[in-house]
Amino acid sequence: MNFASDNAGPVHPRVISALIDANEGHAPAYGADRWTADAVERIRDAFEAPEAAVHLVATGTAANALALATLARPWDAIFCTAVAHIHEDECNAPEAFSGGAKLLALPAPQAKLTPEVLRPAMAALGSVHGPQRGPVSITQATEKGTVYALDEIRTLTALAREFGVRTHLDGARFANALVHLGCTPAEMTWKAGIDAVSFGGTKNGLMGVEAVVIFDPAQSWELELRRKRAAHLFSKGRYLGAQMAAYLTDGLWLDMARAANASLSLLVEGLRALGHAPEWEPEANLVFVRLPRATHQRLRAAGATYHLWEGPLDAGDPEEPLLCRLVCDWSVGPGTVDRFLAIAAGRPVPSAPGPC
Amino acid sequence: MNFASDNAGPVHPRVISALIDANEGHAPAYGADRWTADAVERIRDAFEAPEAAVHLVATGTAANALALATLARPWDAIFCTAVAHIHEDECNAPEAFSGGAKLLALPAPQAKLTPEVLRPAMAALGSVHGPQRGPVSITQATEKGTVYALDEIRTLTALAREFGVRTHLDGARFANALVHLGCTPAEMTWKAGIDAVSFGGTKNGLMGVEAVVIFDPAQSWELELRRKRAAHLFSKGRYLGAQMAAYLTDGLWLDMARAANASLSLLVEGLRALGHAPEWEPEANLVFVRLPRATHQRLRAAGATYHLWEGPLDAGDPEEPLLCRLVCDWSVGPGTVDRFLAIAAGRPVPSAPGPC
Amino acid sequence: MNFASDNAGPVHPRVISALIDANEGHAPAYGADRWTADAVERIRDAFEAPEAAVHLVATGTAANALALATLARPWDAIFCTAVAHIHEDECNAPEAFSGGAKLLALPAPQAKLTPEVLRPAMAALGSVHGPQRGPVSITQATEKGTVYALDEIRTLTALAREFGVRTHLDGARFANALVHLGCTPAEMTWKAGIDAVSFGGTKNGLMGVEAVVIFDPAQSWELELRRKRAAHLFSKGRYLGAQMAAYLTDGLWLDMARAANASLSLLVEGLRALGHAPEWEPEANLVFVRLPRATHQRLRAAGATYHLWEGPLDAGDPEEPLLCRLVCDWSVGPGTVDRFLAIAAGRPVPSAPGPC
Amino acid sequence: MNFASDNAGPVHPRVISALIDANEGHAPAYGADRWTADAVERIRDAFEAPEAAVHLVATGTAANALALATLARPWDAIFCTAVAHIHEDECNAPEAFSGGAKLLALPAPQAKLTPEVLRPAMAALGSVHGPQRGPVSITQATEKGTVYALDEIRTLTALAREFGVRTHLDGARFANALVHLGCTPAEMTWKAGIDAVSFGGTKNGLMGVEAVVIFDPAQSWELELRRKRAAHLFSKGRYLGAQMAAYLTDGLWLDMARAANASLSLLVEGLRALGHAPEWEPEANLVFVRLPRATHQRLRAAGATYHLWEGPLDAGDPEEPLLCRLVCDWSVGPGTVDRFLAIAAGRPVPSAPGPC
Repeated sequence: MNFASDNAGPVHPRVISALIDANEGHAPAYGADRWTADAVERIRDAFEAPEAAVHLVATGTAANALALATLARPWDAIFCTAVAHIHEDECNAPEAFSGGAKLLALPAPQAKLTPEVLRPAMAALGSVHGPQRGPVSITQATEKGTVYALDEIRTLTALAREFGVRTHLDGARFANALVHLGCTPAEMTWKAGIDAVSFGGTKNGLMGVEAVVIFDPAQSWELELRRKRAAHLFSKGRYLGAQMAAYLTDGLWLDMARAANASLSLLVEGLRALGHAPEWEPEANLVFVRLPRATHQRLRAAGATYHLWEGPLDAGDPEEPLLCRLVCDWSVGPGTVDRFLAIAAGRPVPSAPGPC
Repeated sequence: MNFASDNAGPVHPRVISALIDANEGHAPAYGADRWTADAVERIRDAFEAPEAAVHLVATGTAANALALATLARPWDAIFCTAVAHIHEDECNAPEAFSGGAKLLALPAPQAKLTPEVLRPAMAALGSVHGPQRGPVSITQATEKGTVYALDEIRTLTALAREFGVRTHLDGARFANALVHLGCTPAEMTWKAGIDAVSFGGTKNGLMGVEAVVIFDPAQSWELELRRKRAAHLFSKGRYLGAQMAAYLTDGLWLDMARAANASLSLLVEGLRALGHAPEWEPEANLVFVRLPRATHQRLRAAGATYHLWEGPLDAGDPEEPLLCRLVCDWSVGPGTVDRFLAIAAGRPVPSAPGPC
Repeated sequence: MNFASDNAGPVHPRVISALIDANEGHAPAYGADRWTADAVERIRDAFEAPEAAVHLVATGTAANALALATLARPWDAIFCTAVAHIHEDECNAPEAFSGGAKLLALPAPQAKLTPEVLRPAMAALGSVHGPQRGPVSITQATEKGTVYALDEIRTLTALAREFGVRTHLDGARFANALVHLGCTPAEMTWKAGIDAVSFGGTKNGLMGVEAVVIFDPAQSWELELRRKRAAHLFSKGRYLGAQMAAYLTDGLWLDMARAANASLSLLVEGLRALGHAPEWEPEANLVFVRLPRATHQRLRAAGATYHLWEGPLDAGDPEEPLLCRLVCDWSVGPGTVDRFLAIAAGRPVPSAPGPC
Repeated sequence: MNFASDNAGPVHPRVISALIDANEGHAPAYGADRWTADAVERIRDAFEAPEAAVHLVATGTAANALALATLARPWDAIFCTAVAHIHEDECNAPEAFSGGAKLLALPAPQAKLTPEVLRPAMAALGSVHGPQRGPVSITQATEKGTVYALDEIRTLTALAREFGVRTHLDGARFANALVHLGCTPAEMTWKAGIDAVSFGGTKNGLMGVEAVVIFDPAQSWELELRRKRAAHLFSKGRYLGAQMAAYLTDGLWLDMARAANASLSLLVEGLRALGHAPEWEPEANLVFVRLPRATHQRLRAAGATYHLWEGPLDAGDPEEPLLCRLVCDWSVGPGTVDRFLAIAAGRPVPSAPGPC
């Protein structure tokens, strides 16, 4: 019963099969192989962007930091939310990759940047003394499990353009947001004014592959050099390419995202039925919810794993509600959710649903 | 017939199996999994260094740049050879990771740094105006296929210590050098005065895993932070750990290195018999040799892949010798070598030996 | 009538005389001259810190960025206020000098950092994913014209030490704060737990000299290397040394600060008498105050120079109060203040008081 | 008798006068003053480049590092000689300012880069693995006292353009080279293909001012931001402007350079007459020459100051020639040269010539 992170889940068997298939004899190194070419083409197709710069890397932080470094200059401010992964969880990688750009962390309800906050922050800059206006970065789905509507994205990118800067979308959970919105990748990105995307795969069933997608092909070579200089050009690139190509074959990526979101919905509805409404409505594959201390104690005792953000767990009023975060990855099936809910409810626990 | 690079070779089947075994259910993210713990312990055991800081990354450039950044300060000079991979083939990654240290590229016959060259270069520094003395970095086996004897390493590290600095060993082909010398990892590193090692696996049958090994455990946390900040902390760390653990199980890593070196020896002896002596004696799994233009033309026409360092291939005296580099990875068997030699000799070609 | 900035004022004649005296024949370059030695000793004496690392630079941003880079590692967060000069007015110099540290800008009433805000910000950090805890930086006197009491400084530095980090004091207006508090430099710094000081001179009558003072002498050589690498080691160092030595001779620095603070008090009391109370009580040499639009129009028409932070100036209700900042440097005499007040009051203007 | 460096000399009295004149009342800060405007216009006039980006800084290293950072990207190689000031004497400032570019130090007889060495070094780069081709940097006059002929400059810049990169000229001793060649600043720079100049003043009679001149005005704003971020934007900019304006008034800069070169010629001819020919013909204001140990001992005993590059001074054959470097600044008059020569010759020493 692991709801700690979608990073804790396994790799989809079809991705493993693709790795095995790719492991045949010799292949050109450093991304000159046919699997990488296939993956790049599939991404371009998915985004309806036949000229886009697409480069594979192995971590989400690499994708974000490379994309931002390509959009920002060292003397820029990068506008993001105060809970943005790039600000809170990347150990200054964006600063390092960009040569010292400043992340301006703005207040954001439920992790969504708003024009009301963004406009004055951008308007305040401009003199030689302060940082200069640099890119805006938003996360979709957000770190709080919410999803920007297309209109919200368009409003933010229009504002960025008004000030002459570009917009990056951290898509570590791109697919989870996409299936929630029911739109196309193009609609959620360049048609809404997005300039660069971190297209995540690792959190959604891959072993470790993300793509940096920049829609202006003129930046492709710079991005490639930045990737190499950051030590993120893989010599045996075929194994990244094979994963990403499998991800985009026969809609596997969307199926996995749908499965994760559906498990989360099941979980949320079950908890709601027990009287535990989420802090805000989840729209992707994670939820923030308060459960009574005694419930947490039962869950932990039964081996459930997840982030508990308030405490202490061990001592205090059994009824005191404590905030936790629950995340479902593609592999969490209904059986696991049922077990979790049964324990939360103090009901008899169904038998284990297998490996997940 | 791919002799282009050991990066072009496949992953060993036992490593693939280990990946499949690790792909079971959920596991803690970011290297807190049991496969990573197992890999770290196996490396410490192999090096007889139970306290060493050991951190896995996915590329050799990451291992080198992180190790050097941990040893050097931004105002330092890093002493290396003019053909060092860190100088010629990492697109300024060491400069980037270290915050701007300077690589002082010294002349080196067959890619081996000598005290005669190193001493005056170190002695020349010291004032506030120039770069300060920073670490020495050597490559073992070298970029030219030679191997430092243990005495040679000891002499260089003693010189470094005399000037108060540390020594890094770029071991992208660590195993190939080790089996050539017939010594232990400890003898080739810390017992010879080495402070930090890039312990390569990717060129020797892994999908993409290297370890940074720093023998002073006090630097472990800094190294971990540097890795995260460089976006080289993998969320699904178990798949790095599983590869590396398999590598170090039942001597697989040494077996693969021996196979690669043996194929290279077979190739060299075959070419020598044809009258093509190597430029210098190869000691690991790669050779620099001059072959007549006509021979290159035949080989290329037959599909052989390798780096040709002189040209042009297409026009000129058929007898003119042109320099090439030939590399054998673990998967190049005797059959492939025989075919290559047959073509080089203008003999009938044996049938293809299978996938390699 | 220039109240725009203490940077707009002239150099004190005794400092000019010192430059002329130093301009005699040859002198050792790069700070090995006797004027620099004299200046360093005078600073150590003033701070009762005979071993302190003291290095002269020419700009306040250099002093701040070098001090912070010496205290922080690239993966650190630097804790400061949201209106800190280092955050708002240095075009990412602290990020650049430190190799990419993150400035965590905290809310602060009247520009003073409080333990209530600092403690949770520090407590939130610690995992490998986010930035690490780095130095705290406070400004004394603050960007808003307030001054930390000694107790307030001690509380903040104790909190920093509790978390294992150090505290920097941006003393661009060090002297103005000191004469306000009536304490000694030692009491305002190391005796209150401060580890590093940007000791300003430029805003207080020098041509362009500041000193970085780090009380731990072990960091002197690193600081010197950082200064050189940042291109802030002056070849003709004697002209920096001569200025700073004159500044610290016969209390010139304190006299200039007292004059500036006194002019500001005169100005504030005059405005208060006209019904224009300051936004908060000024404690050094600058004030934020709202004046009616018509008053601003009269002042600007009469040639008064200062920062108007609200607008527009030209159109709108003549009685609408608009926020401005007024700064007095050492050279602003009572005559200039009287003229300003007369114009503000709509009274006959006294004749010009001379060059200031 | 100081021949250690032109940095050891005093500031010209007319420059001091200009500082005093500028010290009148208030002036706009951060280079918005009229002295800076005047200086910039005078530089543009001198270079016949009315649109050039011209920004003042206070150190030669700042000028070089800012110019190079503007021309180079972090993944570039900067081509220079192995004895270039930027490589040997700036403590990695070019690496720091550029975000980690690599200085490729090429062998160069008498410090002059040659196309024979530059062409293959440039041709070798280009793949994603190595550094990319970045700017060429030459020093005029060179660190060895030689001067590039206009033809030599044109050949190098043409080669740079052939490879698509730009050329920087480190003009710490710009004036000394210019009066040697007898050409115009435009002829020595943009008419010869130079893109950016560090236009030195400090070594030639200023207190501490250099200008970065980039002939493409489109880079002016970036350069200004880089200057601020490097903490080299002076708040009291008028004192830089006043120095530089005086330097370019009535040919003062050329007069000082001529005086320095003339003193050096006198010195060289005197030494030649004593049998001590220079190592190569000096063309500016410094010479490398070998003098017998006994001569050095007499000179040092008499208080002469200069760099002795071989030793030891105290022990050994009195006739053994030891290499030294002698530099004349504008203030070294014939009397000082005569005294030096008399001591070198073992003749009676003329009385001291005054303050220099």
